[in-house]
Amino acid sequence: MSRSRTPERIAETALALFNAFGEPNVTTNRIADELEISPGNLHYHFRTKQDLIDTLFSRFEHRMLELLGGDGIDEADVEDAWLFLHLVFENIAAYRFIYRDLNELCTRSRNLRRRIRAILKLSMRTASDLLAALERSGQLEAMALERESAVRNIVLISSYWIAFDQVMELDVEPRPDRAAIQVMSLVSPYLRGPAREQFEHLANAYR
Amino acid sequence: MSRSRTPERIAETALALFNAFGEPNVTTNRIADELEISPGNLHYHFRTKQDLIDTLFSRFEHRMLELLGGDGIDEADVEDAWLFLHLVFENIAAYRFIYRDLNELCTRSRNLRRRIRAILKLSMRTASDLLAALERSGQLEAMALERESAVRNIVLISSYWIAFDQVMELDVEPRPDRAAIQVMSLVSPYLRGPAREQFEHLANAYR
Repeated sequence: MSRSRTPERIAETALALFNAFGEPNVTTNRIADELEISPGNLHYHFRTKQDLIDTLFSRFEHRMLELLGGDGIDEADVEDAWLFLHLVFENIAAYRFIYRDLNELCTRSRNLRRRIRAILKLSMRTASDLLAALERSGQLEAMALERESAVRNIVLISSYWIAFDQVMELDVEPRPDRAAIQVMSLVSPYLRGPAREQFEHLANAYR
Repeated sequence: MSRSRTPERIAETALALFNAFGEPNVTTNRIADELEISPGNLHYHFRTKQDLIDTLFSRFEHRMLELLGGDGIDEADVEDAWLFLHLVFENIAAYRFIYRDLNELCTRSRNLRRRIRAILKLSMRTASDLLAALERSGQLEAMALERESAVRNIVLISSYWIAFDQVMELDVEPRPDRAAIQVMSLVSPYLRGPAREQFEHLANAYR
């Protein structure tokens, strides 16, 4: 392969193998084997396996911040919320090795832990803003305690749906569409009027 | 220490270290060091680290099946449900190393994967029976789709609350009481009459 494409091909192959077998079960030698390059060539571009993990994590993080880091939410409707979750969950599915071993990655690297927690905290704020926008426009009715619980549950399920799916049903492809419905069902009992009908319509289409 | 207590002390120390640092980060040598015994003595009782994991898992599983494996649920109220979740979550907290690396343990051992999935499926059935019992006695009102989503979300949050807490707030003690409220809040909007008041009372006490 051409020299200049080597780092990119290493990163892509590492991502595919990490996602398929779990990062702890893939050595840099196996990645080099898969690409038919020498381990020395791989380590010339990525000194350690952690460097490779960091590169992949940065790509995931970049997309996540792009999606989460808007200017705040003024208006929201149920279809927007579903589309937004779908995009976030596609990114999570593309880098699912991170979520399979989230706690182990956090223990191994303080730097990753700080950045993962920043993403989770931003997710909590986004979920909270979204519920507030739905409430302002009369599409949602919930007590403060219910909203707080919902926000925590939304972020928990958003973070662990893919690990749970893998334990329950091995070797199935991730279903970001279904996961988005699963998360929205946390809020559906609080939806009012047309918003509730919109949710039921979506839920029946994507089960 | 007396010869006969050695296996038990090894198991207890392994559990404490696995819970504190994560199983992948604790070697059998470290366990032996902590107990001031030789690695040879440890391996006389537990040939491999996996044997030690299997022993601890069996204890966890025994208690879990004891809790989940009743004769079916005829009657239920909100306080019973909360107490039941609290007991289940105390067991999860006692063996939290399993839930920290659930997916990695499932990949490494087919036998553990089968047993973990059996526990999750039994949990789904128990959650489903519990909602059905609440519905029969007029304490809960939900559509079939809402009940299905709730059951899946209940088992997902029951399985990953402790991993999520660890990522979000490092070095805090597990809070099975708070986790029980978090799980019950998935169902609270569907509760009717006194059941709903009972939930609010509990929620305010254990936040």
